[in-house]
This record gives sequence, structure tokens and C-alpha cells, in this order.
Amino acid sequence: MNKDVAIIGVGQTAFVRSYPGAVREMVFEAFAEAVRDAGITPREIGASLVCSAPEYDKQRSPAGMVAEYLGLNPQPTFVLENICASGTTGVRVAYSLIKAGLHDIVAVIGFQKMSELSSAESQERMGRGADIMWEAPFGTMMPAYYAMHARAHFAKYGTTEEDLALVRVKASRYGALNDRAVFRKEVTKEQCLSAGVVASPLKVYDCCANADGASCLILANAVRAKEISEKPVWILGLGAASASMNLTGRDSLEGLEVTRLAAREAYQMAGLSPRDIDVAEVHDCFTIAELLAYEDLGFAEPGKGTDLLRAGETQIGGRIPVNVDGGLLSKGHPIGATGGSQVRTIVLQLRGEAGPMQVPGAEVGLVQNIGGVGIYSNVIILGR
Amino acid sequence: MNKDVAIIGVGQTAFVRSYPGAVREMVFEAFAEAVRDAGITPREIGASLVCSAPEYDKQRSPAGMVAEYLGLNPQPTFVLENICASGTTGVRVAYSLIKAGLHDIVAVIGFQKMSELSSAESQERMGRGADIMWEAPFGTMMPAYYAMHARAHFAKYGTTEEDLALVRVKASRYGALNDRAVFRKEVTKEQCLSAGVVASPLKVYDCCANADGASCLILANAVRAKEISEKPVWILGLGAASASMNLTGRDSLEGLEVTRLAAREAYQMAGLSPRDIDVAEVHDCFTIAELLAYEDLGFAEPGKGTDLLRAGETQIGGRIPVNVDGGLLSKGHPIGATGGSQVRTIVLQLRGEAGPMQVPGAEVGLVQNIGGVGIYSNVIILGR
Repeated sequence: MNKDVAIIGVGQTAFVRSYPGAVREMVFEAFAEAVRDAGITPREIGASLVCSAPEYDKQRSPAGMVAEYLGLNPQPTFVLENICASGTTGVRVAYSLIKAGLHDIVAVIGFQKMSELSSAESQERMGRGADIMWEAPFGTMMPAYYAMHARAHFAKYGTTEEDLALVRVKASRYGALNDRAVFRKEVTKEQCLSAGVVASPLKVYDCCANADGASCLILANAVRAKEISEKPVWILGLGAASASMNLTGRDSLEGLEVTRLAAREAYQMAGLSPRDIDVAEVHDCFTIAELLAYEDLGFAEPGKGTDLLRAGETQIGGRIPVNVDGGLLSKGHPIGATGGSQVRTIVLQLRGEAGPMQVPGAEVGLVQNIGGVGIYSNVIILGR
Repeated sequence: MNKDVAIIGVGQTAFVRSYPGAVREMVFEAFAEAVRDAGITPREIGASLVCSAPEYDKQRSPAGMVAEYLGLNPQPTFVLENICASGTTGVRVAYSLIKAGLHDIVAVIGFQKMSELSSAESQERMGRGADIMWEAPFGTMMPAYYAMHARAHFAKYGTTEEDLALVRVKASRYGALNDRAVFRKEVTKEQCLSAGVVASPLKVYDCCANADGASCLILANAVRAKEISEKPVWILGLGAASASMNLTGRDSLEGLEVTRLAAREAYQMAGLSPRDIDVAEVHDCFTIAELLAYEDLGFAEPGKGTDLLRAGETQIGGRIPVNVDGGLLSKGHPIGATGGSQVRTIVLQLRGEAGPMQVPGAEVGLVQNIGGVGIYSNVIILGR
């Protein structure tokens, strides 16, 4: 079992529709919580990795701004970007910097303040995260891309709009318990099914929402983790993969091969299988994405994700509870902060500190974080 | 001596004022050269790191585009950004991914196509790479920032505009020999001194120019490097640091503390001192920056960089030849490609393949790459 690098501190702002302060202040909130949680001082941090997608804020190269405001100069800092998967790429790189011996302790800081832009501006930028030569110019946007995935899954496996609604109903139930989530009201299946269409079959409640927020993770090598932390959470496995930016370049749309490849690598590195996972956070930017993840991560056979969902096996008390913090659907999706928020949830679960969202006895957890229209996928397996 | 990770292939487009093709085609040129140089196939590459500053191209998250066009799917890929120091941050991260055991071979791909924008637009973006709350709104831009550094050095050490001209004369002499450089005409001291003022005391020939271009480096672990390459160039030392984004936040302007810190770390890791360096590439975005680098890297005592320069010690045949490929001043500065180009020059030097620019018998080389107004500095020491 790999126990070389651990997560020793986690922090996150509440995700909100519009954060009232500056980016640097928002980032400070998450950082201060993580540093307190780890029980270290900022001076002990050897490097900071800033995970953020550009063009939402005026400040270019925000690593410099973040490191300065957080008192992390003169340690190295840089920006990492994989769109919505930036935060977990930060974990992969922090793990490497530490394991390579360049740093003992690294902070992974993710943020996005999407309210700086109008919804239309934000959509335009998201569109340019897909291929601007072959697909984006024809007007495809994120909901349309995932609608194609949903249609493919419907056609091949008989999945229905009701199944998608079940994903949101579950997300809303846990979101109601999460004081860091944007949406805290429970919604019913009927509300989901009668909501306005965004990109058929996806309706309003099938889509996550833009948000403002920041997250922070503190990673340390084994020696320092054991010195500092009573409850280090170890990085047991890491997997990452990429795919064509164009949906027309994919072999099939019923799942995401990037996730299957990343998961295989992560399970192999951890020496574990899907059966060993006690709790998971998956990238439910749209309801269909959660169903695809069940299958791509091996929690269910291809086409059988709906069985798992309908039987309640992905709720607390079920075989593999998924997104019991409300997921992106309830929490909102501040792009660069999302991966860190997912990891934070699993860390709290494995420490037994998830409060009303706790999965009893969780010892091994998994995070899956997607960038763009399935262009990038990171899978991380964490253990006590 | 660290001989864990080597550079086994290098490639670079000619840097030009306006590249006639698409970004993906430009990147392909550099990549194809590096892969040929390494003698590998793209299938052997385990991950690609894409070093680029955003907001020059419409394509957001260009890692996906680059990986797809170069045939590097499904291996992981992501963007790294440290503005002008992005390329060497790529080397630092590639080193870590390899040494951590996540990948055997990694490609570091840097690019910028600055001609997509007007000069004014480009300057505006550069301005927003400095702090947008406290300095950039007052109209400071890159030449003005470095002009303040020059004035401070002039005041404290008696450096003159003639010294700055000597830097450019040297750069132009070597640029004339470099078929990848934008500027290939030799310039005289008189031309430099009589050129139009950009930000006093910096005149036109004291400033590097925007350019389009791409670079690519292939890194491998020791086992694969020895299998594949007859002339691996080893990463002996790495150092990195960050500083306040605001010049008002610095203790002094006569040098860059970030470089002193990064150099100390790199020398320590390599077990070497400035005396051991046979050839160096430093970040001469402005002529004054090269003089500061002499001192910050320990090639000269503080205030004595001009002695080194005036005595010709930083030319081929001198004690420590610097920027004998023409530097940024002659090559041009396509932001994300610059660090890779610097490293490529040193790799060719250490392999004895630098042609008319060859420093005889060079065995150890150094690269210094700066991001923003001295916000970031990377120092890399390479050896045969």
C-alpha cells in the first residue's frame, strides 16, 4: 500500500452564486481553514499550486497574487489548468513534487469567481474549452454535449429521464445537509421532470450551476504527515487520462473512456478494485455524468448503473454511497475549486468527520474529476 | 551527482513575428523535431505538459488540443503557467512526475502565438500579468518595470546606458548565427544608444520583442534515457522561487531576490557553484535583466556584472559565456516557448552540437527563466 504522501489539511469556502469579496479574500478563507485543519503555519509550506481556469478574472497568472496574499512568498508557485479537473491535477502534481523530494509540504489551492461574468459570457468561455476549430464554432455547449451522452445511454441501455431525476433527487437530499452547498432545498422527482428543457433530455435540474468558491488541500510526505497529523489520509492511487476534444473523435458516447483508463491506473497503483471503495465523489456536472461514472469506475457493469441507482445502492447505507455531499449538482461548480472540494469531502469521510453526511466506517474513498467534455479525467483513491 | 532524469530530445520552431499556420501546426513542428531528436515514437510518451500563457489564442485549455493533434491521447496532459517562466516550470514538473515514478517519459511543450493580437492588446495582457489591484491600474507595463530596475542599478553601481548597449551588441552578434532567431542583424553600440526611448533609460534595442513560436523537450528516467539516448543531458539541479507581484513589495530593485533564492537551491541540489558553470542562458527580456542575472546567479559580485560584461567574459572564449544563442533579445519571446528554447540551447551546447555558437568543452550549463516582473524565477543546472 502506497503511504508516501498524505493529505493533512482541507479547507473550503461555502460555494455561493456571488462571492462579495475579491478573489484573494475568497482564497484566503479556504487556505486559512486548511492550515488550521493541518495544524501548521504557512511558513512550513514549500510550494503552492494554484488551480484555476483563466478568463474569469482580470488578474492573469493568479499564482503570484495568491502566493503573495497568503504569505507564501518566496516559495515557488504556479498555475495548473485542466478546466474543471484542475483541482485534482493539482493533487497529482503536488504528490509528484513531494515524492520526488523537491518539497515536504505543498498547498493545492483551487478557485473560481464565475460571477465576475454574465451567464452568457461564462457559457461562451466554456464553449471555448471545447475544440474551437471543429466543434465549438457550430454552437455546441456543455449541456448539449452531455445531452448527446445521455441520448446515447438512453438508446443503448433504456435509461430514462426518470433515472436522471433520481440522481438529482439524491443530490438534493445530501445537498440539504451540506452547509457549503449553493442549493440546499430538496427537490422531488416531479419537479425535476417538469422543469424547463436546457438541451433535451437534460432539464434545469439535470445541470449543475456556476458558482464562486475556493478550496485548499495541504499535502505532506510520510515523515511530516506522521509528525503533524493524527489522521493523515493517504494517496493510495492516482490515475489520469485524456481524450479527443471532439465528441466526433470518440469511439462511443455511452461512457467516458478517459475515466475507465484513469480508474484502471488508480486501482492498479492502489492494489484495489471497485469493490474496495467505501465512498466516492464523482463529477456530476450533469445528472447523466454520474450514471456514466458508476459504470466507468466499475461500480456497475456497462448499462447497469441505473440498477444501482434505482436500488438506492449509491445512497448512505447502500453498497457504494456516491456524492453524499450533494455533488456538483447541489454544491455548485466553481471550476478550479471543484476537484479540491471533492477531495475534501472524501478526506472528511475517511476521518469520520462528515457529520450528517457520514458513511459509517468508510476506510477507502475515490474521487473522479472530469475536465471539459470528457477531455481530461483524474481518479484518486484515498485511504486512512 | 543527480542523474535520475535526463533530457533526451529537443525541438524548436524558428521564432518569427507572425507564424502563418495554426497553433497546433506550430506546436507540431517543435514536437516532431524533439521526437526525431530523441529517437522515440509518440506512443512512448507517458504524459505531455503544455506551457502557455492564456488569452493569446481563442482555444481555452490548449493541452487537450495539443495532445490530440500530436497523437498523445489517451495519456494525461495539462497546462502549466508561470507567464514567461512557464517552460521551465514544465521541466520542474516533468522531472517530478518522472522521479515520483508516475511516468517514464514526459514531453514538455511550450508555445505562444502572440501575433493573434495587436501590439496594444498584447501589452494590455502583459500588464494584467502584474498586480491588477495595486500597480497595473496605474499604467505600469513591462518596460517601465524594468526601467525602474535599471535606474536602481545605475544609481547604486554606476551602470550606464552604454553597458546596456553592450548587452544588446553581444546578443545581436550571436543572434546573427542562430537560424531560429527573429533578429539576425548585428547592431552597433551607436545604433542602440540612438534608438527611440521606450521607458527611460530603456530604448528600443534594450527590449525583446513579441514573437510566435514553439519548443519541445523530451525528458526520461535514467533507465530509459540510457537505453534510448547516446547523449542524455542530466538535470543536476533545480531551483524555484516567487516574489511579490508589486515592485513596491520588494526590498530592493538592484537585483532579483527570486533568482538568488532559486540559484542557491539549484546549486545546492547539484553540489556545484557558479564557478562550475560553463555556459548559461539567462532571461534577457530587457538588457538590464541580463546584468542583474550575472549578479543574482553569482557569476559576479553585486555591482560587478558590468566588469564581466565590459571585459568580454560573457562571450564565447570568456569565463562564462551567456546567451550565446542571441537570448530573448535576438530570438524574440514567444512567452510559453521561451523556457524550452533556453533549455534546448544548453542541451545542444552540452552535446557539442551548437554549431557556430558552440562553447568549446562545455560540460555544465545553467538556465535562468523569469516570469512576470520578477514574480517567478526558475534556475536549472544541466550536465553531461
